[in-house]
Amino acid sequence: MKTRPDQSMLPILDWGRRYDRPALMSDLLAAAIVTLMLIPQSLAYASLAGLPPEVGLYASIVPLLLYAILGTSQVLAVGPVAVVSLMTATAIGEHALAGTPQYWAVAITLAFLSGAMLLLMGLLRLGFLASFLSHPVISGFITASALLIAAGQLKVVLGVKAEGQNFAEILLSFMRQMGQVHLTTAFIGLTMIGFLFWARRGLKPLLVSWGLRPQAADAWAKAAPVAGIALTAALTWLLGWQQSGVRIVGALPQGLPPLTMPLWDFDLWRELAVPALLISVVGFVESVSVGQTLAAKRRQRIEPDRELVALGASNLGAAFTGGFPVTGGFSRSVVNFDAGAQTPAAGVFTAVGILLAALLLTPVLYFVPQATLAATIVVAVLSLVDLSILRRTWSYSKADFAAVMTTLLVTLGIGVESGLVAGVLVSLLLFLFKTSRPHIAEVGLVAGTEHFRNVLRHQVIVDPRLLSLRVDESLYFANSRALEDRINEEVAARPQLRHVVLQCSAINDIDASALESLEAIDLRLREAGIAFHLSEVKGPVMDRLKATELLAHLKGQVFLTHYQAVARLAPQMLVRGSETSASSDG
Amino acid sequence: MKTRPDQSMLPILDWGRRYDRPALMSDLLAAAIVTLMLIPQSLAYASLAGLPPEVGLYASIVPLLLYAILGTSQVLAVGPVAVVSLMTATAIGEHALAGTPQYWAVAITLAFLSGAMLLLMGLLRLGFLASFLSHPVISGFITASALLIAAGQLKVVLGVKAEGQNFAEILLSFMRQMGQVHLTTAFIGLTMIGFLFWARRGLKPLLVSWGLRPQAADAWAKAAPVAGIALTAALTWLLGWQQSGVRIVGALPQGLPPLTMPLWDFDLWRELAVPALLISVVGFVESVSVGQTLAAKRRQRIEPDRELVALGASNLGAAFTGGFPVTGGFSRSVVNFDAGAQTPAAGVFTAVGILLAALLLTPVLYFVPQATLAATIVVAVLSLVDLSILRRTWSYSKADFAAVMTTLLVTLGIGVESGLVAGVLVSLLLFLFKTSRPHIAEVGLVAGTEHFRNVLRHQVIVDPRLLSLRVDESLYFANSRALEDRINEEVAARPQLRHVVLQCSAINDIDASALESLEAIDLRLREAGIAFHLSEVKGPVMDRLKATELLAHLKGQVFLTHYQAVARLAPQMLVRGSETSASSDG
Repeated sequence: MKTRPDQSMLPILDWGRRYDRPALMSDLLAAAIVTLMLIPQSLAYASLAGLPPEVGLYASIVPLLLYAILGTSQVLAVGPVAVVSLMTATAIGEHALAGTPQYWAVAITLAFLSGAMLLLMGLLRLGFLASFLSHPVISGFITASALLIAAGQLKVVLGVKAEGQNFAEILLSFMRQMGQVHLTTAFIGLTMIGFLFWARRGLKPLLVSWGLRPQAADAWAKAAPVAGIALTAALTWLLGWQQSGVRIVGALPQGLPPLTMPLWDFDLWRELAVPALLISVVGFVESVSVGQTLAAKRRQRIEPDRELVALGASNLGAAFTGGFPVTGGFSRSVVNFDAGAQTPAAGVFTAVGILLAALLLTPVLYFVPQATLAATIVVAVLSLVDLSILRRTWSYSKADFAAVMTTLLVTLGIGVESGLVAGVLVSLLLFLFKTSRPHIAEVGLVAGTEHFRNVLRHQVIVDPRLLSLRVDESLYFANSRALEDRINEEVAARPQLRHVVLQCSAINDIDASALESLEAIDLRLREAGIAFHLSEVKGPVMDRLKATELLAHLKGQVFLTHYQAVARLAPQMLVRGSETSASSDG
Repeated sequence: MKTRPDQSMLPILDWGRRYDRPALMSDLLAAAIVTLMLIPQSLAYASLAGLPPEVGLYASIVPLLLYAILGTSQVLAVGPVAVVSLMTATAIGEHALAGTPQYWAVAITLAFLSGAMLLLMGLLRLGFLASFLSHPVISGFITASALLIAAGQLKVVLGVKAEGQNFAEILLSFMRQMGQVHLTTAFIGLTMIGFLFWARRGLKPLLVSWGLRPQAADAWAKAAPVAGIALTAALTWLLGWQQSGVRIVGALPQGLPPLTMPLWDFDLWRELAVPALLISVVGFVESVSVGQTLAAKRRQRIEPDRELVALGASNLGAAFTGGFPVTGGFSRSVVNFDAGAQTPAAGVFTAVGILLAALLLTPVLYFVPQATLAATIVVAVLSLVDLSILRRTWSYSKADFAAVMTTLLVTLGIGVESGLVAGVLVSLLLFLFKTSRPHIAEVGLVAGTEHFRNVLRHQVIVDPRLLSLRVDESLYFANSRALEDRINEEVAARPQLRHVVLQCSAINDIDASALESLEAIDLRLREAGIAFHLSEVKGPVMDRLKATELLAHLKGQVFLTHYQAVARLAPQMLVRGSETSASSDG
């Protein structure tokens, strides 16, 4: 399974060999659309991360090339994304002031560490680690991050100076500053938000009604942010808004991404280790879930461990070319997919597009109002807010609800890193809590059958001399004591008891602690004159038990089926089972 | 189940009502033997904890009385024990110098915090928390602690001044000091160790050969430490060994335990919180496991949550009467049981015995050499060393072996608290790791039956249009992605596939993440033109699924049995199953 004949070490060798003209045309078109989308997004997310806008462009060139060579998804578009940019801002904020060269250097170091971790996780095949971020935690985290980002960007949209470490502080500071709203800025920003929200739903039908084909209308509708940005930039240039205090992007350096090095400061590395790990895991999870969803639509698949390597290389690439942490973005990958990208070559063409923008287009971006970029972020992240998860988990599972709420509240109230860690811990603890209190049912014989069911739910036949228990969980250290307790309790309450039979049909594993518990149960029962038996032990579990002393010591037996156990140990139950099919004595 | 008619709020009301003369006589005899054993042990463990010896006596009076009133075990003997005393010394060592009044005050505070935590855990019914200390971790921890204690006491036995924070340091410092061995001290200490080891095996047969009845011989053999202590004390007094530098217990205050208060220093509390929690949990686990083992021998039972309350009260009692953290001891409880104790009244009588010792006997203890006490500790703790757990876990489960080794090495190399925490973390992570990589088998029809088995292990019938998968684990966030990956992989490899059926017989739970994964799987399969079905879903799991949208959206169906699913979806398999009973095409 590991090495398939049709897969090379480098995915590019697979698709590169089959590359043809139709694929080229599709990839070029998709790349053009994604490039248009990525230019303003890159600038905006770099600002969100507290970095100069051009850094966003730098982070969208070499990382895309490296992903195209190493990635297993045909359509994933890599670059700066909202949540990771917020996490980057939080992580660097503790070590440097936004806008300083030191800040940028720390961002580069963070990308380097994150890349190294991803690469290492990939080479060690540790992709499964990402599984410990449960869906509820991810949902809560993304929703809370989106709210934090939106709250933070609103001040740029309105031209006020709100500050704050958490959601409540940002909102409070915001309300206090309401008097200082810069009217022209607010006009530009709010109009842009209104336009973008309208464009999502209304632009495509409008274009279709104007006679465009639906597919073309869709592509043009996706370019709405670019149109909005171009329009506001043109208006600013014409009307001189920047002179009345509207903040604009301003002069961006023109040219190739710089060659950069991370800071070789081990104290800093140690302090950035946890944020870098969290950024890696969140980025990986976002990237893999969108990659998997899109791959499945074409019956393709991605390989999580190779994705780790590809994303690791992309982040290392970002670190050495003046970028900051990147990952596979949701919306741009969907756009890339919908626009018909066939192979990672679309990513290469997109990288070339962004490179051209960095070389030639930066003067054009001079007059873009910052409020316009902030508006595109607000609209983009608000689509990530999903509060329905609260309702759904509440009705399905209170444990999952608790995990969502914890993540949401801690992220909003304390911060992104604390929120994520708290969410993971709560979900792990609740899972352990659940498995530590397994469902243990006393079962009895259903009259006229060979089936055994829960005595509390069904009319079944039982016998005071024989106790049948079924544990609906694998036995391990955290629940083996619960089984001991339950059996002790039952034994103390049943003076006539002679046999205890444990039906093991739902036990997928027995660890060393549980094995010792079974030995302890057997020993205690034996000393009380009771035989302990097992039934319906699964093959793999039996294989391991055979090598232990439990079976040698066991006073009772191991039965293939629970019915056989009862037939041997309490035949009177079967007689009653055949005599009566309605009455029960248990 | 919660409130049984035969159980009162206070266990003492149950056994007190039925108390009679035979029980009284049995309890008195057991109490006399345990008192003899407990006097030297209490002094020794107080010294081990870095406290004045009389504190050991104080910790063996009021705690015993409180446990007799509140405890649910009939025979548990509470007081200072080796491992908890070591943990106490470690915890206080960071806050005060051994021998100072501050040190004692911190010990009292530690007992207070530990008692409060136990009480709270009991009232909140959090006894299950102790389950997270797996057997391998406990074994590794106790063995390592015993080695640490023995290494630490050896210097007292030999009269040298070795110091060190961990096992290697203690041993190294010890070797460097070998030239300074105090010969008389070493003679007393080593002779005592030799005598005690011999007494364990050889004394009882000798006494029996002298004509004693086996039971009496056993009781007298248990008193060997007392005899050894009395003899060395007498020799010291006669020969004036203390003048040649043999350290003796010296003058102990005579009288009732003092009334004391914990330090109301919240900074100190915060720093002691983790050690106090670890001491509580270790003490509780030790106490409950010995209590359960002994209760089962008489078909009695103990209630873990009420044990927490009783141990909590005992520790609070220790805090207010000049003691230090206590718990139910293994060896003394076994002695109490073997000596015939019938009720907790034996504990009351033991407490009275220790009280009399504190009031009257302290002058007699003046000449007891410290080396003799240290020798009793060395012999007692070496019986706790169990390295066979390494061999057993190695052959049974590598994950459990890793947990034992981690606990053992970190405890020896860094310290008791780190060792315990590392052990718990490693065992939890390995459990999560195991459940995150569930066994997923492709199953096929066994010819001539309605059974489905693993295609890798059995000759079975399969069909390229239908894929049957069985997951041997409950589905939750950490493994739902593994199922997604597996299905993606299978789908990509089978161009003819039309149906995927998930056999859910081993799935005891599906959490919200797994539910979303199932929805994602269904969606992706549907987009690839494949129907996703479930079979053999358990009742409780089905109850919850019914309320979700999964079943409404599902393109496939939910079948009662896997055979029904195949009969409906791929009837050609059944035909082949009846035609042939030996060949297979998968």
